[in-house]
Amino acid sequence: MNAQNYAQENKERFRSELHELLKIPSVSTDADYAGEMRRAADWLVNHFEGIGLSTEIIDIDEQHPMVYAEYMGAGEDAKTVLIYGHYDVQPAVIEDGWDTDPFEPVEKDGKIWARGATDDKGQFFIHVKAVEALLKNDALDANVKFIIEGEEEAGSTAIAKFVQEQGHRLNADVCVISDTSMSDIEQPVIVNGLRGGAVCEITVIGPRQDMHSGMYGGTIHNPLQALAEILAQLHDPDGSVAVAGFYDDVLELTEDERKEINVIEWDNISWSEDTGATVPWGEDEYTLLERIGARPTLEITGMAGGYHGDGFKSIIPHKATAKIMCRLVANQNPQDILDKIEKHIKRITPPTVKVELIKHRGIGASLIPTDTPAIQAAIRAYEKGWGTKPIFKREGGSIPIVAAFQQLLKLPVILMGFGLSTDNLHGPNEHFSIEMFHKGIETSIHFLQDIANLQTETVEEVK
Amino acid sequence: MNAQNYAQENKERFRSELHELLKIPSVSTDADYAGEMRRAADWLVNHFEGIGLSTEIIDIDEQHPMVYAEYMGAGEDAKTVLIYGHYDVQPAVIEDGWDTDPFEPVEKDGKIWARGATDDKGQFFIHVKAVEALLKNDALDANVKFIIEGEEEAGSTAIAKFVQEQGHRLNADVCVISDTSMSDIEQPVIVNGLRGGAVCEITVIGPRQDMHSGMYGGTIHNPLQALAEILAQLHDPDGSVAVAGFYDDVLELTEDERKEINVIEWDNISWSEDTGATVPWGEDEYTLLERIGARPTLEITGMAGGYHGDGFKSIIPHKATAKIMCRLVANQNPQDILDKIEKHIKRITPPTVKVELIKHRGIGASLIPTDTPAIQAAIRAYEKGWGTKPIFKREGGSIPIVAAFQQLLKLPVILMGFGLSTDNLHGPNEHFSIEMFHKGIETSIHFLQDIANLQTETVEEVK
Repeated sequence: MNAQNYAQENKERFRSELHELLKIPSVSTDADYAGEMRRAADWLVNHFEGIGLSTEIIDIDEQHPMVYAEYMGAGEDAKTVLIYGHYDVQPAVIEDGWDTDPFEPVEKDGKIWARGATDDKGQFFIHVKAVEALLKNDALDANVKFIIEGEEEAGSTAIAKFVQEQGHRLNADVCVISDTSMSDIEQPVIVNGLRGGAVCEITVIGPRQDMHSGMYGGTIHNPLQALAEILAQLHDPDGSVAVAGFYDDVLELTEDERKEINVIEWDNISWSEDTGATVPWGEDEYTLLERIGARPTLEITGMAGGYHGDGFKSIIPHKATAKIMCRLVANQNPQDILDKIEKHIKRITPPTVKVELIKHRGIGASLIPTDTPAIQAAIRAYEKGWGTKPIFKREGGSIPIVAAFQQLLKLPVILMGFGLSTDNLHGPNEHFSIEMFHKGIETSIHFLQDIANLQTETVEEVK
Repeated sequence: MNAQNYAQENKERFRSELHELLKIPSVSTDADYAGEMRRAADWLVNHFEGIGLSTEIIDIDEQHPMVYAEYMGAGEDAKTVLIYGHYDVQPAVIEDGWDTDPFEPVEKDGKIWARGATDDKGQFFIHVKAVEALLKNDALDANVKFIIEGEEEAGSTAIAKFVQEQGHRLNADVCVISDTSMSDIEQPVIVNGLRGGAVCEITVIGPRQDMHSGMYGGTIHNPLQALAEILAQLHDPDGSVAVAGFYDDVLELTEDERKEINVIEWDNISWSEDTGATVPWGEDEYTLLERIGARPTLEITGMAGGYHGDGFKSIIPHKATAKIMCRLVANQNPQDILDKIEKHIKRITPPTVKVELIKHRGIGASLIPTDTPAIQAAIRAYEKGWGTKPIFKREGGSIPIVAAFQQLLKLPVILMGFGLSTDNLHGPNEHFSIEMFHKGIETSIHFLQDIANLQTETVEEVK
């Protein structure tokens, strides 16, 4: 028996193990779930140990734990692969519009339906199972390190500190991350660009408490209205961000890059089918894929104020808040962007209200060179797994730690995503293709075998 | 012993009875509280019967019950006073910023602190106790009808239907309502103008569900942003409402009316002390009191969309909603105003989103003539209770049923308010002055005695 056969024969068990992990509601952004986070980390430790890896829980400050696992049995001269993933998930409750409980995985229509199925439990678990298949068949000729963090959806602060302070522990020849997606299961994609991000919260404060709208209406600048007026001034009518200097550091696309991005067809009709919205919005001079992959954005991701339950409350509310999230591209600096937003908001805030801005974390964008030997190995692995050569794509999402791996650890990063863009990550009814899960394991096995055999001269050949 | 002495001697009991009523969270706008509404109505029935009135629970359709109570023992030739009040209250939870549980009344600093203390349980209870004092001392020479509804904070639909269909049951010589306020406890006020209202809910719909802000950001018109852009276009920069035709039917103030309104001084400094806001906002060409009493307004009373819990969720939300409440003045037509708002919103909605508008109920504004014999009786009652002549004032709030009483029942309405404008009705820490409660009972006793003795010729004298 070889590793691929082993993976074939253990398909059902692999998925049922994944179901166990998906059942744990490891929501990192909500303090109420801290216990579940710890439970998910413990589950992973047990699982890695069952496969035969040495493990360690890494706690940084009071943050959510990271799980580290390694197999160094290939020896000092062998290649080492670092595999990154995250076990934390976005918040989810059935009331958000899920057909089934987000934390009770269901297999239906060839998919696994659960929060975290594609982002990222299902995706990193592919490599866990590939390593198991190789180890159980004495076929793992590379060293492997896993670092599975619990704060990807919450800004990756713990792992950022860990990389800065103990980065040498993650030394490797290449880093593989499966946390991105392709738009068509027949066409594998290697992502070579990720957006960064920066988030802040704005609170507009009016009267000292909720006031009777009859007794004071017409004299107080309603904080909800003032907030709406401020938010309406964050974009220009052409869809661009109105914040002064917002685009100053944006690396413009070259003609070649534009061509490559637009290889995939995504017209207004497919866009409308994917989103359910009427017509696209945004910067007209860029195609839809360019806007997502190569242009920075500013989104209002949440807003609340006054009484928004059933019925009406006749008040002028004390305050109103909104959450703002920017997606950034190379070479924008997140802190600089937040400062520019703050300056802009201060400038447009009328004297009739007070504004408080909380500037949260920021993460840089990443661009990945496509001519490294590691990427060539990934291309070969996909060709074996799919029978099709992968294409390159810049993706709109962010994986906070990629920039740190690149800059601090000088690691070649390969974004070997097995998601589909229709998997609905972050929304209700997130799911993951069962076919993709197993194809992914097959591809990962090929990749780990290929990397193990990679000769140093290959590097020079390619260069 | 006479009625006034009786009221003096039973002060503590009167207040402890009011506390019992305040403890019932009779929130009419939230279906979860339907049982509490029924409990409050039953409490009132028992209480009225204890005093010696005949009572009836009036159920209209599936609405909250009304409590009717009458004393007709003064005989056919005697005057009849209708007393209106409402036992429903605005929603309240301690987390809104209350110092104590809103439904556990506390007496402190000369005030009763509880939701409904001034709006309107404490105020209508004044008349219940005045009637008790007169009855127990064989001194009630007028017939009295009480109609205490449970939907004043929810549009008064049941009572409106009742008045339309069985209005004769409320026939009377005068109607007294205590549900308004004065700005200074030393200066009694009779309100002679009330604003009407109209409410609607706007929902902006974007993608079919929450979408990943990284994977779709920059191509979808974010519903929160679109909502902000729409709401920002509901007012012009001068503070006036931008809806076309909004002011068409507004009765402009006469010079005399402006003088009368501005007798009370309310400058920017007192305004700022009352509200805690920085500087006033609104229509510059009107004084603060004119804006509140005689100008229509459009307020956003609630807004929600996306993720607004702790932390961040990187989504473009499916939809965003806002609640809009207009305060209207004579002669604006609520339905016409809602139609105009709908037309305006349709006009400014971009093609990139869908908008749904739910037009709810509307109520007309009221102007009350100040030269009726009943008002003269009220003036005399205040002079006895306070030692000070009351002044007239137009108030910004609405009491939905007043227009129906005036137009359908042809009832002279007297707005004998015992609230203070600082009572914080509808907000956290609503309270009611204990001194005002007892002064109110004294004044109500005087009024009921005066009305009973009112001669028909008085009408002619005054005219």
